[in-house]
Order: sequence, then C-alpha cells, then structure tokens
Amino acid sequence: MTVNEIAQDLVALCKTGDFETPGQKYWADDVVSVEPGGPPGMDPVSRGKAAAAAKGEWWAGAHTVNSTSVDGPWVNGDQFTVRFHMDVTVKESGQRQVMDEIALYTIKNGKIAEERFFYGG
Amino acid sequence: MTVNEIAQDLVALCKTGDFETPGQKYWADDVVSVEPGGPPGMDPVSRGKAAAAAKGEWWAGAHTVNSTSVDGPWVNGDQFTVRFHMDVTVKESGQRQVMDEIALYTIKNGKIAEERFFYGG
Repeated sequence: MTVNEIAQDLVALCKTGDFETPGQKYWADDVVSVEPGGPPGMDPVSRGKAAAAAKGEWWAGAHTVNSTSVDGPWVNGDQFTVRFHMDVTVKESGQRQVMDEIALYTIKNGKIAEERFFYGG
Repeated sequence: MTVNEIAQDLVALCKTGDFETPGQKYWADDVVSVEPGGPPGMDPVSRGKAAAAAKGEWWAGAHTVNSTSVDGPWVNGDQFTVRFHMDVTVKESGQRQVMDEIALYTIKNGKIAEERFFYGG
C-alpha cells in the first residue's frame, strides 16, 4: 500500500467511529506515539504497540464520546496528517470537553513508525 | 517567545491575509521549506530564507487569492501545525482551485527551522 492508501484507509475507519482498528492494522511493533503532555504520572511518549494500545484503552475508558468529526488526510512523502475533532465527556468529572487535534503519522515499510499529536487551543 | 506565542502570532498575521510577514519575521536564515511536489522543473525543497521567499513571490505572482481561511495553531513541543484553506485563481489558465493544506513548522532558537506542507484532497 502507498502512504496515501494507508492514509485514506485510516481516515475512512476513523470516520466510522472505529479508532482501534487503524492502530491494530498499521502500528509498527516499535511504534512511538507522542502526546504534547499527559495526566500527571503519565509519560507523553508511548513506545511499542502494546503501550500505544494501552493508552488508547485508558482514553476510551476515561471518556464518553458524544460526537466526532475526522478531516483529511493531508499527505507529504512518507508522512500524513489527520484532524480529529471530538466532543467528549470525562467520565470521572462529568465535564464535557471539545478536543481538537492534528495527528501527524510517519510511515516506514507500510507501518506507522511514529504518530505525533498536536493540540489546538 | 515561546513556540506557542510564535504559533499564535503567525496564525494571527495569516488571518489578516498577510502571508509574507510571518516568513520575514520567523524564518531562520537556513530555513528548509518542503512541498510534497511542485511544478515541473521546480525543486519541492527550498533551502534558505531567500529561496523560501522566492517561492512565495512566485506563488503570489501566479495566483489571485479569492478568499482564505486559516485554522490553528495546534502545538506539540517545538512544533506546530496550521491549516490553510484557499480559494485561488491560477492567473495563467484562469482556472479556479481550492487549496487545502496543513503546514507543519519546526522551531529552533525562536525561528522556523523547517516548514513542511501537506496537501489534502
């Protein structure tokens, strides 16, 4: 698959509300997943497929997703970006939040070698 | 200035329709500017402030800008992203085009060391 085909497939899956399959399908075993920050005590950098999946499971468990919109992809060489806009409720606090993120994916050998998330204000 | 302050200033300038000042203000002397591709015979990689400015001047001369919208920034560490949506007319052909791009900026020592453009569509 080309980088563009992977990008299109990832976006198509996310648009159906499936944010798990893209990782399982495209993360490299040694994927590095980088958040700008994280909750206290949580490393913003997850290394390896298991750690990236654990982060996703923690997130899914901690939030109720009210609605999402996914835009993109935008492609350059072996990298592409996707915009995620999510209306969520934090389960613990009941607080409703809007999350607006750009994800930057770097593809090597047909797999996601790195994903890096940028947060909007 | 912090990366976030540079990002906010760049976006604020672009929102006024001023796409020249951010480069003059924030490009490093050895900035690298990377397009996914380019017209035949044009290098997608511009190296140095003069080459980046020349690319901008070529672009501004070749297009009439009908309208623009600028979203962002989204920040992670020393990098940030901005979305540019432009309705332009190619002067030579008269053809109207919508350009939808994400720009990824990397800041070093308070200057843009690299800018990398991702194309949508």
